[in-house]
Formats: sequence, C-alpha cells, structure tokens
Amino acid sequence: MRATQYEGNKTFSVLEKEITEPQPSEVRIKVAYVGVCGTDVHIYHGMMDKRVSMPETIGHEMSGVIDAVGAGVTDFSVGEKVVVRPLDDRKVKASDKGFNHICEELKFIGIDSPGAMQQYWNVPAFTLHKLKETTDLKLAALIEPLSVAAHDVRLSGLVEGETAVVLGGGPIGLLVAMVAKETGAQVIISEVNPKRIAKAKELGFDAVSPIDIDLIAYVKEKTDGRLADVVFEVAGVQPALDVMTELAGIRGRIVMVAIHGEKKPVDLFKFFWKELKLIGARVYEKEDYEKSIQLITANELPFEEMITDVQPLSNIQQVFENIDNNPDGLKVLMDCQL
Amino acid sequence: MRATQYEGNKTFSVLEKEITEPQPSEVRIKVAYVGVCGTDVHIYHGMMDKRVSMPETIGHEMSGVIDAVGAGVTDFSVGEKVVVRPLDDRKVKASDKGFNHICEELKFIGIDSPGAMQQYWNVPAFTLHKLKETTDLKLAALIEPLSVAAHDVRLSGLVEGETAVVLGGGPIGLLVAMVAKETGAQVIISEVNPKRIAKAKELGFDAVSPIDIDLIAYVKEKTDGRLADVVFEVAGVQPALDVMTELAGIRGRIVMVAIHGEKKPVDLFKFFWKELKLIGARVYEKEDYEKSIQLITANELPFEEMITDVQPLSNIQQVFENIDNNPDGLKVLMDCQL
Ligand SMILES: NC(=O)c1ccc[n+]([C@@H]2O[C@H](COP(=O)([O-])OP(=O)(O)OC[C@H]3O[C@@H](n4cnc5c(N)ncnc54)[C@H](O)[C@@H]3O)[C@@H](O)[C@H]2O)c1
Ligand SMILES: NC(=O)c1ccc[n+]([C@@H]2O[C@H](COP(=O)([O-])OP(=O)(O)OC[C@H]3O[C@@H](n4cnc5c(N)ncnc54)[C@H](O)[C@@H]3O)[C@@H](O)[C@H]2O)c1
Ligand SMILES: [Zn+2]
Ligand SMILES: [Zn+2]
Repeated sequence: MRATQYEGNKTFSVLEKEITEPQPSEVRIKVAYVGVCGTDVHIYHGMMDKRVSMPETIGHEMSGVIDAVGAGVTDFSVGEKVVVRPLDDRKVKASDKGFNHICEELKFIGIDSPGAMQQYWNVPAFTLHKLKETTDLKLAALIEPLSVAAHDVRLSGLVEGETAVVLGGGPIGLLVAMVAKETGAQVIISEVNPKRIAKAKELGFDAVSPIDIDLIAYVKEKTDGRLADVVFEVAGVQPALDVMTELAGIRGRIVMVAIHGEKKPVDLFKFFWKELKLIGARVYEKEDYEKSIQLITANELPFEEMITDVQPLSNIQQVFENIDNNPDGLKVLMDCQL
Repeated sequence: MRATQYEGNKTFSVLEKEITEPQPSEVRIKVAYVGVCGTDVHIYHGMMDKRVSMPETIGHEMSGVIDAVGAGVTDFSVGEKVVVRPLDDRKVKASDKGFNHICEELKFIGIDSPGAMQQYWNVPAFTLHKLKETTDLKLAALIEPLSVAAHDVRLSGLVEGETAVVLGGGPIGLLVAMVAKETGAQVIISEVNPKRIAKAKELGFDAVSPIDIDLIAYVKEKTDGRLADVVFEVAGVQPALDVMTELAGIRGRIVMVAIHGEKKPVDLFKFFWKELKLIGARVYEKEDYEKSIQLITANELPFEEMITDVQPLSNIQQVFENIDNNPDGLKVLMDCQL
C-alpha cells in the first residue's frame, strides 16, 4: 500500500508499505479521504517536532471503509463506512472528572500516534463512528473539524434568536458559523482576508472586515444595541482578543476556540462589568460527532464549498507547500484511494 | 442631624444638616451602622473624583430603621429594620436583557448619589430589604458585602464535595470563603499578609501563603490530584491571575471578583486545554441579598469576628487615615447612632 510520512524539516516522503493485520480490538480501515488540518501544517513547519516521533504518518480528519476487523471486534463489519474520533483516552483517571475527551493523558491519534494519510490504517475500534451507506465520503472527511464546531456551539449555549459573532473565517470559523446559523441564531463573521470574506459571503454569511468597518458599531446596529450573545474567538490574534470583550453584550459568552501559545492581555474589567463568561473549548465529545455526522448526512449546509482542493496522496509534499503559499484556500483533501 | 461629606483631597467633613422629608416612593432611614468598603477608600484616595460629585456623603454597606415613609409607600412602616440594596436600576433598557443589577445606566447609590454615612438617609423604597426584629444591626451592616460573596458563589455553581480556592483573604475573600464553606465545599484560602492568614485561621479556614508554600502542590494534595473545581480571584494582582489557571482542574470555573483596571496577561492556552470557564461577577441580585440576610439572621458563621473596629461618625477622617496605615484590619463600621 501507499503511505506518507513526515520526516521532519518540512519534508514528507511517499513510500510503499506492507498492509498489516488489525490487532485484537482494532479494525483496519481502507482510507478514503483525509483533510489537511492547521495542526498538520504546524507539524510540517516543525513546530511540533517534540511531540511527533519521526518518521511518522500524520492526519486525523478522515473517512473510510472497514477493510478487516481484529479479534473481539463485534460491533463493526467489513464494508461499513466509518470515521475515526481520533482521541485515545484509554489512560483516563479519576481526576479527569469524566471529561475523557480532554483527559490529562489523552493521546491524539495522528499526532501522538500514526495517522490516516496512508491507504490502510489500523485503529482501535472504540474510536469509530458509523456512517450511513449513502454518506458521501468526501464530505465525511469534514466530520472531524465540523465536530470541533459542534462542540464549540454546544458549549456556548447559543439558542435561536440570539446573535453570534465569529472572529476568524478560516475553516474552523466557517464551520462554527454554519453550526451557529443552524441553531437559528443571527451570525456575523469578522475576517480580514478579502478572499475569505468573499468566500464567506458566497456561503451565505454576513461577513465583514474589521479593517474596513467599525465592527462594534456594526454588531450594535444589527442587534438593536444588545451586542453579541456569543462571540467565538477563532482567529487566534490579539486584535480578536481586544474586540471580543467589546462585542459581547451583558452576560455574553465568549468561546475560546483559538489556541494562544503565550499569555495575552485580556480586558478582565469587562468580564467583571458585563458579567461575561469565557468558555474554553477543546476538540469534541461523542455527542458532537453524532451531531456533525447527522449534519453531513443531511447535507443541507454548504459543506461542498468548503473543499477547495482534492489531491492524490503522492502529491503530499506539494500540497503542504501550496497551503503555505496560498492562505485563501479552505480545506484540502488527500484522496487516499488514488 | 449629623452628616459626613467627602470634600475631595483625602478630606471628610462632619456637619449638622436639616433632616428632610422623604419624597413620594421614598423612605427616611435612621441609619444604624455603615461599613467602610474598599470602594470608599478608593473615593477617599481621589481615584473616583470623576464619578463622585463633591462634596458628597458616601457609604453603601448599611443597616438601619425606617423613620418615616413618603407618599405611596405601602410595603414599609416606621420602626422596621432594613438594609438598602444600593442599586438604582430605574433606567433599565431592553439591551440589558433583564440583568438589571448590571444594567448599562445603573447608578450605584452611595457613589453616584448620596450615601449612608449620616444619621438619616432618604432612599427609594424599592431598594429596601426587611430584616427580622431580632436581627443584630451591627452584623446587618455586613449584608451588602456578604451579598457580593453570595452572588460570586452562586454564579460559580459550587456544590457540596467540590473544592474552592479563594485567592485573597481580604474582607470580600473571607466572606466568599464563608459562603463557599457553607455550601459543603472544601475551601482553601491563599493570602500573603501574615496577619490576615492568622485571622483566616482563627475563623476556622485552611489558609496558606503562596510565598511560603507551593500552592499548586498543596491544592493538588488536598484534592487527590483533581485540583480546584472553583477558583475565586479576589486578590486583584497579577500573581493571582498567573496561578488561577494552574489551580483550576479540568472544566474548572474561575470567578473574577477582583476589579482589574487594566488589561492583564492571561493564560488562554489553559482555558482551551482544560476547558476552563471564566465567570465575571459584579455586585448582587435580589436573591443574593435574600440569601445573605438569611445567613446574617441565622448568625451561624463567624461574622462578628469580621468587624475589627466600630467608630462614631464624627471620627470619619481618622477612620480613613487609620485604614491606610493598617492593612490588617478587616471591616470598620461607622456607628451613626452616636
Ligand atoms: N479548540 C480546538 O479544539 C481547536 C481545533 C481546531 C483548531 N483550533 C484553533 O482554531 C483557530 C482557527 O483554526 P483555522 O484552521 O480556522 O485557522 P486559520 O488560521 O485558517 O483561520 C484564522 C482566520 O482568522 C483570520 N484573522 C486574522 N486576524 C483577524 C482579525 N483581526 N479579525 C478577524 N479575523 C482575523 C485569518 O485571516 C484566518 O482566516 C486556530 O487557532 C486553531 O489552532 C482549535
Ligand atoms: N465584583 C464585585 O462586585 C466586587 C465587590 C466588592 C469588591 N470587589 C473587588 O474584590 C477585590 C477584593 O476586595 P477586598 O475588599 O477584599 O480587597 P483587599 O485588598 O482588602 O483584599 C485583597 C487581599 O488579597 C491579598 N493578596 C495580595 N496579593 C496576593 C497574592 N499574590 N495571593 C493571595 N492573596 C494576595 C491582599 O493581602 C489582601 O488581603 C478587590 O479587587 C475589589 O475591588 C469586587
Ligand atoms: Zn484537525
Ligand atoms: Zn461595598
């Protein structure tokens, strides 16, 4: 089979490998598509070399079909379409308080252990979610990032009639915006990249640039002075942190989706004054996967338009180089069937 | 009657004034005791001169007895013991979303309008809460700051069996600790002032100094590695902000009680990683007053020991000068009956 490996130093290799048998409690998946995630790009840039053992196959946003089942696997059969929820929480402890998806000893499959960017992939059966036979495997590669969005919106408590502002119209921001809109909320996207603003508008969103307009005044006007009920910080930059506490109205909730590597200045006075809430959100839980599988299966949101490129596995090096040179694209899929 | 006035420039005056009749919908209170709040000390230091019109009577942590009722006041009678919830929310708007206690146009009585440090005080009847005939009026002067604590603990969602760490053992921190302990939670106080640590221990608390011990290791040990379910930031300093995100365990809640005048560095990565919540908390709502009146009436917590001095109204200048020279005292009451 064909497999890819991150070798360090901004380099991927493409190689032929033996197909191996699934161990007890494992299944072998014939991988269909794997989305390239921001985290994969971080790995490519060498920023996670301490965590990733090299050479290593990466990739965690995938869809596929069960190809073989190991001993003791009774819930899954060959031929079934599946996605992997890439969280290995087998070392969960009492101090994790039941929040297994963020347990202290969590291993993220595709980062801390081999990932999906290969033709066949062996994974523990407990990571699997079944799809319908009719589910489009291309769209199904969006289930992992869509589950991030479903988790963020669920933790925000957003309900119909409220207003959500999404700071950052990248892949995660757009998916958050879709799930938020699906709840019946008014959604406003703030984004600085003109191509991404255009894309967000194409997808039917109210998308504006905080450089061109006074975002706070805009949100005030769109809410009769109430300001946002929920702000999603999905940009990961200081200007988003500065504006989030301004955009949130009284008792507003701010969901911290972006990953900030360093301590950053935050207006804590505004948290006190308006009784704001900041809600940290990381990956997803089982129910978020179920929600996002349901959304992908129904296929009533503009998921198709999120996929801006599909490339064969053998082009992996070029795919990562292109992403670096083109911040306008959204989701690139590796087609592992080719 | 005797009244006091803040004159600006770290100066209070004591003067004789006419007793005035309550206007329609107002009552006249014969003030018993008024606690000196950190905010009053800020005013004394001239830090709120833009907000306080001078000369002005200040003070909002009070107890007293109804002395006269204005036209249209039917729910209150002369002789009843009362406290004032000093929030004038008459300009509430739809955009305040029903959170009247923090409405945009809120006036804080005793800061934005005349306060209680005088023998008779006229206030709108809607600000009143009745006390029992048997309620100690000295302890009742603690109801306002105790309501802050009741609000903070309520918003935290703290329940029996959980662990709360209170950062800062000043008057507000100690009251938060009392209410937290009363819910059945384990409470740990972190404080740097040795006199205040000693006081907290006297009040029956597990109180430690983050200078003397490794606070994170201490909390870990006291919780079998779970860390804190709730952290109350009541210190208002950067070291407290630095440690709060370390002390909170998975899905821990951090209540921001302290007022931070400037943007401060916060570890947002920890919010993401452990899915922490930051909850801004400001003053109190009606039900918090009811809770704290019930606690003061039951008198089963060490409230008496919170009152470190009682002084006649005529000593006001000296009282504020002493507070500056002695950061060890907790709550000083002005006795307005003398
Ligand atoms: N919480 C989680 O579990 C989780 C999962 C996946 C990704 N993430 C994080 O979510 C964030 C977004 O991910 P992504 O893949 O969409 O990243 P991205 O970089 O593609 O998207 C960020 C977007 O923000 C825009 N932006 C920059 N400055 C802005 C500003 N001032 N105002 C508004 N927009 C601005 C950028 O143009 C970009 O389009 C990243 O920080 C990522 O690490 C978190
Ligand atoms: N949210 C509200 O509505 C509300 C109401 C009243 C007061 N407050 C605020 O609450 C805070 C506390 O009020 P207070 O009157 O008790 O103030 P305070 O200054 O008396 O108490 C703060 C305490 O923190 C201690 N401290 C300093 N550094 C510390 C550290 N590194 N670790 C632990 N403790 C440390 C100090 O020694 C002091 O005892 C203030 O910021 C005040 O403005 C908020
Ligand atoms: Zn991903
Ligand atoms: Zn006060």
